[in-house]
Amino acid sequence: MDKIYGGIYSKGPAKKTDSFLVDEDQRKAEERLVPFYLWETLAHNFMLVQQGIVPSKNGKQILKALLFFLEKAEKEGFKINPEIGDVHENFEHLLKEEIGDDAGWFHTGRSRNDQVTCDQKLITKKLLLELFREICGLAEILEKNSEQYKKVVMPGITHLRVAMPSSFGFWWQAYLDQIIECEKILKEIYLTLDKNPLGAGAGYGVNWKIDPKKTSNYLGFSQKLNNALSTINSRGIHELYLLGPLVALLTLLSRMMEDIIIFSMPEVGFILLSEEFTSGSSIMPQKTNPDVAEKVRSKVGKILGAFVSISTTLKGTSSGYNRDSAETKIAIISSLDEVISVLAILKDMVDKITPCLEIMEKVVVSSLAAKVADSLVKKHNLPFRQAHLIIGKALALSDKDLSKVNKKVLEECFALVTGEKVNLENNFLKEALSLNGILDSFSYEGSPNPEFVSKVSKRLLEENKEFATFIDEEEDKFNKAQKGLVERVGEFLKE
Amino acid sequence: MDKIYGGIYSKGPAKKTDSFLVDEDQRKAEERLVPFYLWETLAHNFMLVQQGIVPSKNGKQILKALLFFLEKAEKEGFKINPEIGDVHENFEHLLKEEIGDDAGWFHTGRSRNDQVTCDQKLITKKLLLELFREICGLAEILEKNSEQYKKVVMPGITHLRVAMPSSFGFWWQAYLDQIIECEKILKEIYLTLDKNPLGAGAGYGVNWKIDPKKTSNYLGFSQKLNNALSTINSRGIHELYLLGPLVALLTLLSRMMEDIIIFSMPEVGFILLSEEFTSGSSIMPQKTNPDVAEKVRSKVGKILGAFVSISTTLKGTSSGYNRDSAETKIAIISSLDEVISVLAILKDMVDKITPCLEIMEKVVVSSLAAKVADSLVKKHNLPFRQAHLIIGKALALSDKDLSKVNKKVLEECFALVTGEKVNLENNFLKEALSLNGILDSFSYEGSPNPEFVSKVSKRLLEENKEFATFIDEEEDKFNKAQKGLVERVGEFLKE
Amino acid sequence: MDKIYGGIYSKGPAKKTDSFLVDEDQRKAEERLVPFYLWETLAHNFMLVQQGIVPSKNGKQILKALLFFLEKAEKEGFKINPEIGDVHENFEHLLKEEIGDDAGWFHTGRSRNDQVTCDQKLITKKLLLELFREICGLAEILEKNSEQYKKVVMPGITHLRVAMPSSFGFWWQAYLDQIIECEKILKEIYLTLDKNPLGAGAGYGVNWKIDPKKTSNYLGFSQKLNNALSTINSRGIHELYLLGPLVALLTLLSRMMEDIIIFSMPEVGFILLSEEFTSGSSIMPQKTNPDVAEKVRSKVGKILGAFVSISTTLKGTSSGYNRDSAETKIAIISSLDEVISVLAILKDMVDKITPCLEIMEKVVVSSLAAKVADSLVKKHNLPFRQAHLIIGKALALSDKDLSKVNKKVLEECFALVTGEKVNLENNFLKEALSLNGILDSFSYEGSPNPEFVSKVSKRLLEENKEFATFIDEEEDKFNKAQKGLVERVGEFLKE
Amino acid sequence: MDKIYGGIYSKGPAKKTDSFLVDEDQRKAEERLVPFYLWETLAHNFMLVQQGIVPSKNGKQILKALLFFLEKAEKEGFKINPEIGDVHENFEHLLKEEIGDDAGWFHTGRSRNDQVTCDQKLITKKLLLELFREICGLAEILEKNSEQYKKVVMPGITHLRVAMPSSFGFWWQAYLDQIIECEKILKEIYLTLDKNPLGAGAGYGVNWKIDPKKTSNYLGFSQKLNNALSTINSRGIHELYLLGPLVALLTLLSRMMEDIIIFSMPEVGFILLSEEFTSGSSIMPQKTNPDVAEKVRSKVGKILGAFVSISTTLKGTSSGYNRDSAETKIAIISSLDEVISVLAILKDMVDKITPCLEIMEKVVVSSLAAKVADSLVKKHNLPFRQAHLIIGKALALSDKDLSKVNKKVLEECFALVTGEKVNLENNFLKEALSLNGILDSFSYEGSPNPEFVSKVSKRLLEENKEFATFIDEEEDKFNKAQKGLVERVGEFLKE
Repeated sequence: MDKIYGGIYSKGPAKKTDSFLVDEDQRKAEERLVPFYLWETLAHNFMLVQQGIVPSKNGKQILKALLFFLEKAEKEGFKINPEIGDVHENFEHLLKEEIGDDAGWFHTGRSRNDQVTCDQKLITKKLLLELFREICGLAEILEKNSEQYKKVVMPGITHLRVAMPSSFGFWWQAYLDQIIECEKILKEIYLTLDKNPLGAGAGYGVNWKIDPKKTSNYLGFSQKLNNALSTINSRGIHELYLLGPLVALLTLLSRMMEDIIIFSMPEVGFILLSEEFTSGSSIMPQKTNPDVAEKVRSKVGKILGAFVSISTTLKGTSSGYNRDSAETKIAIISSLDEVISVLAILKDMVDKITPCLEIMEKVVVSSLAAKVADSLVKKHNLPFRQAHLIIGKALALSDKDLSKVNKKVLEECFALVTGEKVNLENNFLKEALSLNGILDSFSYEGSPNPEFVSKVSKRLLEENKEFATFIDEEEDKFNKAQKGLVERVGEFLKE
Repeated sequence: MDKIYGGIYSKGPAKKTDSFLVDEDQRKAEERLVPFYLWETLAHNFMLVQQGIVPSKNGKQILKALLFFLEKAEKEGFKINPEIGDVHENFEHLLKEEIGDDAGWFHTGRSRNDQVTCDQKLITKKLLLELFREICGLAEILEKNSEQYKKVVMPGITHLRVAMPSSFGFWWQAYLDQIIECEKILKEIYLTLDKNPLGAGAGYGVNWKIDPKKTSNYLGFSQKLNNALSTINSRGIHELYLLGPLVALLTLLSRMMEDIIIFSMPEVGFILLSEEFTSGSSIMPQKTNPDVAEKVRSKVGKILGAFVSISTTLKGTSSGYNRDSAETKIAIISSLDEVISVLAILKDMVDKITPCLEIMEKVVVSSLAAKVADSLVKKHNLPFRQAHLIIGKALALSDKDLSKVNKKVLEECFALVTGEKVNLENNFLKEALSLNGILDSFSYEGSPNPEFVSKVSKRLLEENKEFATFIDEEEDKFNKAQKGLVERVGEFLKE
Repeated sequence: MDKIYGGIYSKGPAKKTDSFLVDEDQRKAEERLVPFYLWETLAHNFMLVQQGIVPSKNGKQILKALLFFLEKAEKEGFKINPEIGDVHENFEHLLKEEIGDDAGWFHTGRSRNDQVTCDQKLITKKLLLELFREICGLAEILEKNSEQYKKVVMPGITHLRVAMPSSFGFWWQAYLDQIIECEKILKEIYLTLDKNPLGAGAGYGVNWKIDPKKTSNYLGFSQKLNNALSTINSRGIHELYLLGPLVALLTLLSRMMEDIIIFSMPEVGFILLSEEFTSGSSIMPQKTNPDVAEKVRSKVGKILGAFVSISTTLKGTSSGYNRDSAETKIAIISSLDEVISVLAILKDMVDKITPCLEIMEKVVVSSLAAKVADSLVKKHNLPFRQAHLIIGKALALSDKDLSKVNKKVLEECFALVTGEKVNLENNFLKEALSLNGILDSFSYEGSPNPEFVSKVSKRLLEENKEFATFIDEEEDKFNKAQKGLVERVGEFLKE
Repeated sequence: MDKIYGGIYSKGPAKKTDSFLVDEDQRKAEERLVPFYLWETLAHNFMLVQQGIVPSKNGKQILKALLFFLEKAEKEGFKINPEIGDVHENFEHLLKEEIGDDAGWFHTGRSRNDQVTCDQKLITKKLLLELFREICGLAEILEKNSEQYKKVVMPGITHLRVAMPSSFGFWWQAYLDQIIECEKILKEIYLTLDKNPLGAGAGYGVNWKIDPKKTSNYLGFSQKLNNALSTINSRGIHELYLLGPLVALLTLLSRMMEDIIIFSMPEVGFILLSEEFTSGSSIMPQKTNPDVAEKVRSKVGKILGAFVSISTTLKGTSSGYNRDSAETKIAIISSLDEVISVLAILKDMVDKITPCLEIMEKVVVSSLAAKVADSLVKKHNLPFRQAHLIIGKALALSDKDLSKVNKKVLEECFALVTGEKVNLENNFLKEALSLNGILDSFSYEGSPNPEFVSKVSKRLLEENKEFATFIDEEEDKFNKAQKGLVERVGEFLKE
């Protein structure tokens, strides 16, 4: 197969080199790039014609062919032939078949270095916007659950042991809050990295009067390049910036899944999963296993692996393009695919989780020890540490079971700790152990008081809506740029 | 040793448990927290008094003691006793020795969960601001180098082989551009995460009328908590958000170091390192090795390791505090220390690198093949691909040495490729291979044209100054909050 | 400070370079090396004298001083002065103070490259043997538990839901089996890597008539070097070989800890932890949290981080020593320390876990669905898949609660699935649901049948004993080599 | 689609659950398992019939169908339908279509847990043996190069600066030695993990009189299970044991590639790469880039990523099967594929690298400074440190260029350092700087002396042959087991 860089070679690379360099994973990644490659190539060549770099006649031939390829690829897809090479080599080959040697014009003022960086950036933007949409959808469901269950009492857990009274809505809201925070970070990174790589060439610019502003417009980028070399060197680095918060996101989702898996254990019984998101056993008839939650939990491994892979792959490579960075293409595409599919099913699963009110209410009682201590402080003006000690001792004398602690034991322990005798009110324990108004008694934003939970949720929802608006606008910009270019070129060809 | 949670225990944790839980690394991390712990504790207790939660008399005792501890710790440092426990247990113990059982008040309305999260956040902010200052300083030197050497011709490298003509200033600028980008991302993340954890308690709020707004003010946080549980769950997650871009930063610095190490090889000779940043050999008298650059290059391993460590440690832990997350404290502190020290020495080393003009100029000639091809395109209206092929073949016939290619060979190859005869101008090759105006001929921003390099550098420098201003303001806020609180409490005690 | 490589320098490295290269972490690691450095240096110099490379008179001076340093360091320890440099530079400095310029002989035929590789290998062997001892001890406790509880019925868990009947001893044995497997792998790696680096010099041998066989003997290595360069290049690579299985070990321990944490949840209640290995709460009096188990669970993060760090640090560095590899010293020492301390406490904690027989027996009933299906197959000659379907449907009609399934429902479901009517024996369900002989009915090694559990445990214990013997022998060899050398040198000095 | 575990479900899992659980990557991995699944299923069912668990009539039907599927899959491959589920569900479905409800027998005494663990182990063995074959082949080429070039003088490099004289063969041998070491470790791990998972069921054994010894024979495993639960828990752990040394291998190969890339830089010029393993540029006609070496260098990132991914995925999951571990299947298969393809092309590339003798010989001179110092020591009975200092100073006075150092300067520096006057022999420098016999002068095994290089190579080659024999035997065992089973079942069906 004739290579596009054939002159200096006597025989050219071995066949096995071709198939090593464009292996199965690379081939698949290249195919994913096709629509973005064609868009970017159209933009570049339209600019070349407008700048007078490619003669108008040749340019029109090329642009016409590109529009045709684009239309065809949309309909039928496109299969990369690895023997020919990467996506660019495949289309240069095709174009040559289509229009002959004049195809030789269409790579003027561009290198495969800036071309592929640009294509990778376009598909990344596209996938990121999908991913943002899914996060946004997940946040909506979390907000809904948070509001719906804000008054459902639930034991708050630390160290997997019952800790303090809380609410089911408050638990959902914790994840909502973390998701909204993640949205903000992702948005800023998205905006910072929204840069057009065209014009970088092989990292040192091209010696043609190209116009990066034009191609930026045609491709919907908000910024053009600052430095050709930094543009090329940023391949992989930009991917790290993006994957960093996604590792954090998947880490926190793994914790949400752990909660869900444990809370839905029959022995715990706080929540029920819909059978839609479970899977059975081939030998145990009684089983409905939380497979979806487990698989979601596992995915942090994959995204963290991709992050490590990119950093290690780039580490210590000299500046300018090296083939090493081709690996980053596969890693980012498959990571984004993965996160999108995780978020999509998670949203649905979360939507159908139901609480088991009675069980949670029953269990929550054992979380009231701190409340009893607080009551001692308030009623008997005791330093908190002493109250803590009193309740601890009382529990030790009552099988560590708060419901077995009685007035007498408590008074004894009071005496033991403080050296003073006390007469507790008769209903002291009953009141202190009552769940009545337990949530309402919290007095500030950030606590499980349902009123404050609502207030915070409303604010978070507002922020989520802003994020949704941002996604709408970016998608719009992206799609309009793409469509707009095709139309403009179409008109130009009619001229 | 009596534990602060002793009531329910019969004998208490084993000694080996204490020393396992607060091991050498933890102890050192706890000691780093001391000043931040005291500041935070002062803020919390001042608020408790103001809110009427702790009786004024007791509160004053406590505040007085805390001011005393703070002053003492500043002077003498503070040694954690692991048998007593973590930083809080140590100071509760000390306070009890100082003021007796009334010390028992000072942990009211707080848990060690929100306490340590808050302390960790304060030290992180402090270290981040130092780190930002160092990045900023590095960027200044890079800008200076970029401007100073913008006209020094240098071969642009891809695949570690000479590729295209470029400049030494342009190479420096590439790193400058990446650094400025990193600054932007870090700044946004810093701002997003600047939240006061106090009020979270053990993750489910506290049943006292505390005022998170007050403590946020006293501690210089711009935001208070949204949800007590998300606050606790974010420990480690916030560290991932911060370390992500630092992994990217260290990855790109490892590439800068690789360039510097290779460019300063005697066989390459593009640059000279100052001996100040090298180290010799115990057996080879001729050696001045680039040890500093190597050690900087290696550090991405450590920061990536810390990132992996935190994600893996948190992965799949149920929500609410678990002891696992104590590891995140060590990881973030030592990572930030590491990056700060790397940036500090890097800045100095980079400042003293000098170019070897003659060698670079000599080598750059072999990078002009594409320029010759471009000239063929421009002069003979050839598709670029054909020009590329002609030069390639000419090189193959001339020992792959561009300086050996002559007019005759070029004309033969022209005929071979295009099927047409051509008469090249006599000085075609001389002109095409001339370095005269080689940089000035680039025509757009982002290319190595010195004029555009200057323009971009100016813009980047401007952005760096904005970043410096941001650091100034944040440091100011941080320091003023700290000092301001001490003063206010001092005044309050005089009342 | 005069450097040992000072000739070619005009002023020498900057002070900040010294403190960057030998930073706090490096300094601490160097100090850990001291006894091994002195041993190795004694061996090397004794060999130099024996080979006639260093004049006998000078050699005796040096050896005497080294014995003195060794004795002193054992008593008082040794503080590295980072301004002087690494461990070697410190002792060369000290030796010069002690015996003057003749100290200049003692680094003949050696480089810091092979010296530090050797010292690192010696401390690694020492720590590994400690670590092996701890694994061995853990395996003993696991075997003891496995045997003791082999008849204690326990629900086997998959997907954190009750799956099949099993025993508490069987559960312990699962971890025992994995630990023994790990022992085997670690042993083989230990043996493969037991190579003396001396003679490698700076990676290209030394031009003296040294005798690596002698130093191997003096240092207790079973193999000498094959190739000077591979010896130096293996720094870090050997550490990866060792840390790989330790990551696997810590991963599996994290799962054991997860089991222990969940099984000891009050809601689950299968086991009780001794309070010795728990920790309380500063605000919740009822808490006894499984902090030790949590911290053990977290440690895989640290060891995995170290593994990643070493691989990334070495990645793409050119062959021969580079300063990058200094990082591997810190990573391996702190990782081995960490794993040793984890195993030490784990052993004790595991020894004191007690089962809650009644709860486990009660819960195990819900695991018998597959057994009921098997009974249907056996009694009614049904394909297993149909029996599975019948029980599944019966459960669906009985609140998914096996204890609620009755004969009638079962017969109906039988008819529904097979299309045939059946009369189940009256006591069919009673028998199928009986726990009587439930473990004994398993018929092969590897199953929870107590008899087979015993048989396997015995075999595993035997393998553990072999491992213990191996450790004894290796420790003996190690200690004898060290002592023996000191004695021989002592005698030589008397000659 | 009817699920095989359908009884307890009302509607069953959602469609999106199916496609989430068996996504594109899973589907591909399942398809790779097909031949191993069928082999294992044949073994299991043959055993079931022999043990009288499945009625002979039904058993024969099943075995016949399985043989048919096997034959068909070998010819045509097999497409997994993700709506039906995993590989087992697909074949159970198919079998039911083929032979009706009696298909229900064929999963008796087995779970998908032990089934998939077994299949994964079989494909891993198969791929490992291929991988071993490739390592072995690489080692052969390295040995050949090592022997062929043992007398070719080459500068030894440290810190990427010329250090000491060495040989090209010695450099190759360094990698050979590391590869042989890796072979040993991999072999031991392979042998330790060669265990049959059948009989583990869902981790708690199966209540049938199965015979794991039989299936071990049929599947070529050398060991049967010790404990059903450890068998299931080891999924992923075994993969970590295997990937650990592969990370080390790829790390060291990344260093070999770095050497090759730098040594073949035109500015360095030590070696030439065959153009077969390079790739050109789409815009720079002069380029032949070392793409293959770069891609090989990058691959450590992917394998390290897979290692991290598996450890993180398993971390903290409770014992017994969880869906999380399905990820390990994809990670191990794609990692082994990757390493195999890397080794395959590497072998060929390494075979065609040629040295540039003259350049290496010219550069090596600057590595002789230590040799000159050694000569001073030997001739003038000087401590080495003083000789080092003298040469260093002489270099400093001679442009740091050893070839410019003359007798006078050397004598001056001698006086300066020692305070004594010296008369160097007239040809002292000439002799000390001569390359004559430079390699032969090394006196021990492990040094670059060609004689010793040969001796070591012979030994390493011998070890490589032993490894090759081991591979032959294992492959033989593997293939014979597979074929043997098919034949035995064939005969049984004729009975």
